[in-house]
Amino acid sequence: MIIVLKANVSDEDIAVVEGKVTEFGYEPRVVQGVERTIIAAVGDEVTHKSLETLQNMPMIDRVVPIQKRYKLVSREFHRAPTSFNVGKNKIGDGNFMMIAGPCSVESREQLETVTKDIIASGVTVLRGGAYKPRTSPYDFQGLREEGLELLQEMKDTYGVSIVTEILGAPHVEKVAAVADVLQIGARNCQNYHLLEVVAGAGRTVLLKRGMSVTVQEWLSAAEYLLVHGCEDVILCERGIRTFEPATRSTLDLSAVAVAKKETHLPVIVDPSHAAGKADLVLPLSKAAIAVGADGLIVETHPNPSEASSDATQQIPSGSFDQFMSELQPFIDICFENRAK
Amino acid sequence: MIIVLKANVSDEDIAVVEGKVTEFGYEPRVVQGVERTIIAAVGDEVTHKSLETLQNMPMIDRVVPIQKRYKLVSREFHRAPTSFNVGKNKIGDGNFMMIAGPCSVESREQLETVTKDIIASGVTVLRGGAYKPRTSPYDFQGLREEGLELLQEMKDTYGVSIVTEILGAPHVEKVAAVADVLQIGARNCQNYHLLEVVAGAGRTVLLKRGMSVTVQEWLSAAEYLLVHGCEDVILCERGIRTFEPATRSTLDLSAVAVAKKETHLPVIVDPSHAAGKADLVLPLSKAAIAVGADGLIVETHPNPSEASSDATQQIPSGSFDQFMSELQPFIDICFENRAK
Amino acid sequence: MIIVLKANVSDEDIAVVEGKVTEFGYEPRVVQGVERTIIAAVGDEVTHKSLETLQNMPMIDRVVPIQKRYKLVSREFHRAPTSFNVGKNKIGDGNFMMIAGPCSVESREQLETVTKDIIASGVTVLRGGAYKPRTSPYDFQGLREEGLELLQEMKDTYGVSIVTEILGAPHVEKVAAVADVLQIGARNCQNYHLLEVVAGAGRTVLLKRGMSVTVQEWLSAAEYLLVHGCEDVILCERGIRTFEPATRSTLDLSAVAVAKKETHLPVIVDPSHAAGKADLVLPLSKAAIAVGADGLIVETHPNPSEASSDATQQIPSGSFDQFMSELQPFIDICFENRAK
Amino acid sequence: MIIVLKANVSDEDIAVVEGKVTEFGYEPRVVQGVERTIIAAVGDEVTHKSLETLQNMPMIDRVVPIQKRYKLVSREFHRAPTSFNVGKNKIGDGNFMMIAGPCSVESREQLETVTKDIIASGVTVLRGGAYKPRTSPYDFQGLREEGLELLQEMKDTYGVSIVTEILGAPHVEKVAAVADVLQIGARNCQNYHLLEVVAGAGRTVLLKRGMSVTVQEWLSAAEYLLVHGCEDVILCERGIRTFEPATRSTLDLSAVAVAKKETHLPVIVDPSHAAGKADLVLPLSKAAIAVGADGLIVETHPNPSEASSDATQQIPSGSFDQFMSELQPFIDICFENRAK
Repeated sequence: MIIVLKANVSDEDIAVVEGKVTEFGYEPRVVQGVERTIIAAVGDEVTHKSLETLQNMPMIDRVVPIQKRYKLVSREFHRAPTSFNVGKNKIGDGNFMMIAGPCSVESREQLETVTKDIIASGVTVLRGGAYKPRTSPYDFQGLREEGLELLQEMKDTYGVSIVTEILGAPHVEKVAAVADVLQIGARNCQNYHLLEVVAGAGRTVLLKRGMSVTVQEWLSAAEYLLVHGCEDVILCERGIRTFEPATRSTLDLSAVAVAKKETHLPVIVDPSHAAGKADLVLPLSKAAIAVGADGLIVETHPNPSEASSDATQQIPSGSFDQFMSELQPFIDICFENRAK
Repeated sequence: MIIVLKANVSDEDIAVVEGKVTEFGYEPRVVQGVERTIIAAVGDEVTHKSLETLQNMPMIDRVVPIQKRYKLVSREFHRAPTSFNVGKNKIGDGNFMMIAGPCSVESREQLETVTKDIIASGVTVLRGGAYKPRTSPYDFQGLREEGLELLQEMKDTYGVSIVTEILGAPHVEKVAAVADVLQIGARNCQNYHLLEVVAGAGRTVLLKRGMSVTVQEWLSAAEYLLVHGCEDVILCERGIRTFEPATRSTLDLSAVAVAKKETHLPVIVDPSHAAGKADLVLPLSKAAIAVGADGLIVETHPNPSEASSDATQQIPSGSFDQFMSELQPFIDICFENRAK
Repeated sequence: MIIVLKANVSDEDIAVVEGKVTEFGYEPRVVQGVERTIIAAVGDEVTHKSLETLQNMPMIDRVVPIQKRYKLVSREFHRAPTSFNVGKNKIGDGNFMMIAGPCSVESREQLETVTKDIIASGVTVLRGGAYKPRTSPYDFQGLREEGLELLQEMKDTYGVSIVTEILGAPHVEKVAAVADVLQIGARNCQNYHLLEVVAGAGRTVLLKRGMSVTVQEWLSAAEYLLVHGCEDVILCERGIRTFEPATRSTLDLSAVAVAKKETHLPVIVDPSHAAGKADLVLPLSKAAIAVGADGLIVETHPNPSEASSDATQQIPSGSFDQFMSELQPFIDICFENRAK
Repeated sequence: MIIVLKANVSDEDIAVVEGKVTEFGYEPRVVQGVERTIIAAVGDEVTHKSLETLQNMPMIDRVVPIQKRYKLVSREFHRAPTSFNVGKNKIGDGNFMMIAGPCSVESREQLETVTKDIIASGVTVLRGGAYKPRTSPYDFQGLREEGLELLQEMKDTYGVSIVTEILGAPHVEKVAAVADVLQIGARNCQNYHLLEVVAGAGRTVLLKRGMSVTVQEWLSAAEYLLVHGCEDVILCERGIRTFEPATRSTLDLSAVAVAKKETHLPVIVDPSHAAGKADLVLPLSKAAIAVGADGLIVETHPNPSEASSDATQQIPSGSFDQFMSELQPFIDICFENRAK
């Protein structure tokens, strides 16, 4: 770490800080600048205690960490891109994955229609919420166990893989019995207790970025999963909170480009929640592929205007094949050399 | 709800929307404007399904909800300010509450020193984290059960009330056995599963606003607590995420003024986490009292530069009486007529 | 406009509001809801005074405008996409435009090298700052008139078109004598005085979106240009301010998709300023094309690490042809049917 | 500056960076860490070129500036708080200043009523917009020269001092002839051309913080004023853009506390524009005084619901004395020892 001292500190002050740095187990190296003195503290920042606590001392201006706070997720630790299977589909390292389905599981009829429609479009990873986190307690909270049963039925009947959200530790066993991928929603991105429990479930985990979570914090949340034993982690950008009201959230595609450089894990994009409007999903999906995402998770519904949740952002499943064919040229460019 | 149609829609389109509105159980009232037609949908928006799903229809520009999504927390439902006791201390309806203590419980010696120091300053509600949500899995995660035992010891020995954070449903019983107030941290503000479980614990709940949660969403999260049986809820503003790096978060004191108008529940402020710097805590505490907060939760530590977490924002507990005496004139103005 | 009254207002209160609405020249239509009464005010919101002033009245909860605040820039007013020439290059309505060049004009040698390099890559619209808005008064402020002369020289010698920024009304004549396109920078997006002056200069105007300007406000700023006589306006998204520090700004590609639906004007993207890092410019450029942008403005420099400003985000001009060839497949998909 | 190298760089790479640092006029000091090497570059960062340009080099992770980009405004340069007079009123160094008046000058009658009302409340600094920056070109743009004449009349008749906004360089002479204080609005905070021109006008300048401008950038904008010859500068916080829709902007009172530590210049607060709602102005004004502001600028109008601009945030001037008397206890605490 680098400790930047205030202007005009005395030699005694410098000695006091050097003493502190040594006490914390680092080796201090003083560099006298023209206007400021800095002290470089040499030592492993992950195993040692952070010197940021010293920022309280009156002669210190600020403390600048040098190392990152994650390891297992980083490309410095694991250079090659990670890839793994979700059911019969591969993701990562040049393999594109499309995940599609309704926001909420609402009925057998609804789910079966969507399942058939996405299969007809060449997609075999089905998303669908059984447990729904809703802003208001008066909104539809999901079919819960009944929803899980319907997802199991689709899996048995049509051979699709299942992605579904998990809201609390007590549901892990039940949900993991059905799901191939356990989704941690944006609001739970930094619910570290849930991350620890889910990491032990033996399933792939899809970790959405929280609405005000930086890329560094998102990767640190993923680090919790790896530290607790889960290796197959998919990161998902779904929009951040900004001042702009034209879209529900602001899709941060730069974050996808940054994350792809920082981590070996696959990174996908959820354009539906970001936009909140169905007619923006196609252009944002194209852009997500172009920026380097490893996949997409898109909401589609047989009859969006009758959906129980997030109706405005769902594409009619009857036209999902049309949607897929408009994406195909972009998938071809970005994945042609490596996907097969 | 109000449905705003696009410019130049046909009479058939209007009839189609009217049909949909009726189908959803509302009564449509068409108002022809100069440039646009709107359809007012008359009906209870909380018990009926939201018409926002119609936003997908090609002739609709947008749907504007009229009612709010919370009831029990609102002043429209319960006009008089709510007050209740935390141990022997009252909060709300003109009663000021100061909560103080270290970010994390670190040792008996540390906790006992702080406890004595805050008592000497006239404060008898002790905060201290036993379970700590940390951005990195490599950071100190709290003393956990050992921390709870130390908090119990302070309660038994010094008669203080205890405020401590809860991270997951499985900890509720253990934590509630010790704590007078169960704190839901900012990162769990929209962890609805945890809210439901904590609401049933028979304790006061302190609900921090999430870093990117609007006032409406924060009140809706509190509504979950009331709906699930918890009546003694304290709201706590602790700063939101913005572009400004000079402070850890941006303390949103306007939100305190807005929340005080909207809800009957007490609203307090955490200036320590918002600022992230000890020397900003005093001016922000004064401002919080002046804007109308019902209390404060402030971090204090016997020796901040050796703290295990959030060192830079903790006030030395040895000077906490000085801190309190600088606040006193503001408390006197804002609470003089009602507090005694 | 829609006036939403508070819950439980009296008939007298309703009559008072109706009176006010009439006084402002609108026709009031009262709609009694289950919990709230609303009053629709029928009348042209652009020519009449805004009723938002009534929000002050004690019985009014809020006032919701229905119409937009811009006309000339909107697709409702002018349905077909606008296209025009910049020198010999066309932009808009299926024509892709690449603008490239250094952040600042620094010397004849630098500018000539870049000019030759971009021409060799097939690009003939040159950007380069002569007047530079810099955060600190101690930073390089641009070569100013000498910079303009160098730009003129490139135009004369190589036939390139020129895009350069304008900082103040007194420079308009000088800058317009050289430039084909006058650029309004992000910090001046809502400098309405400058917009009015620049609109009269008889040149194409490139209007960057301000760092905290909504899409609606950006289009309203463009409306100033059209109202004051400038028809050839290019909108440019260059990133907004958010909490995320991994990139200099957060490129808002959703805003490009939204703007393309709202306005007939061409919309381009500046990935260089948004990212602030040269290695993110290529993926973001691909994404910008995929999302539907009509062009790009990219910074390139013969030797970025010696640039006088914004060094970290400039691509080496010697490899600009490589950059262009990596973009080509995306340009081919997005513009193939219409560009020729 | 500190240059942080990437993990695992070679000795040759280190030597290359050392060479670059020397070439830029700094003296390099290499510090070998456990995981990373850093190079401290010793030299004056204000007079030398920034090394941030090196961030482009493949072996460099990032460059961390140590010095600030402003001098004249900083307390390191000028320790004692600055104070000066606006008319007969003093601001700074313990002197509280209240500025009040309508958003826009609308008519003699309106302005005279307000002027009398504020004088009756003990306030003698009048604000009022003659040139108005409006989001839409169709909104009221101010009475302009006629507005200036009315302000002059109030000055002549009632002896008030005048604060009014300036939108463009060509207006400086006219506006400075009337105004004691030239206001730079939030949208022009980084309009450096205007700052330079206004700095030469021989008047006090009130510089509002831009809606997405950091404290560092705000102080750097003020540095432009001081560098160009203006010494009497008042900084004004007026709210920043965030995701929260409950208020027009988010008033950043932490920024006031931070700015007061960083600069010797007086800092005031505009609660009216921040809140956008009249009933929030009183609590926010109290909080602004409590946090340490040197003054307030508050909007008041004889009849807010008929105002030509920003009606919802203006306090009725007839009750301004009531407003002042509610603030008085806070002014008394915060200024009692020094103001008289």
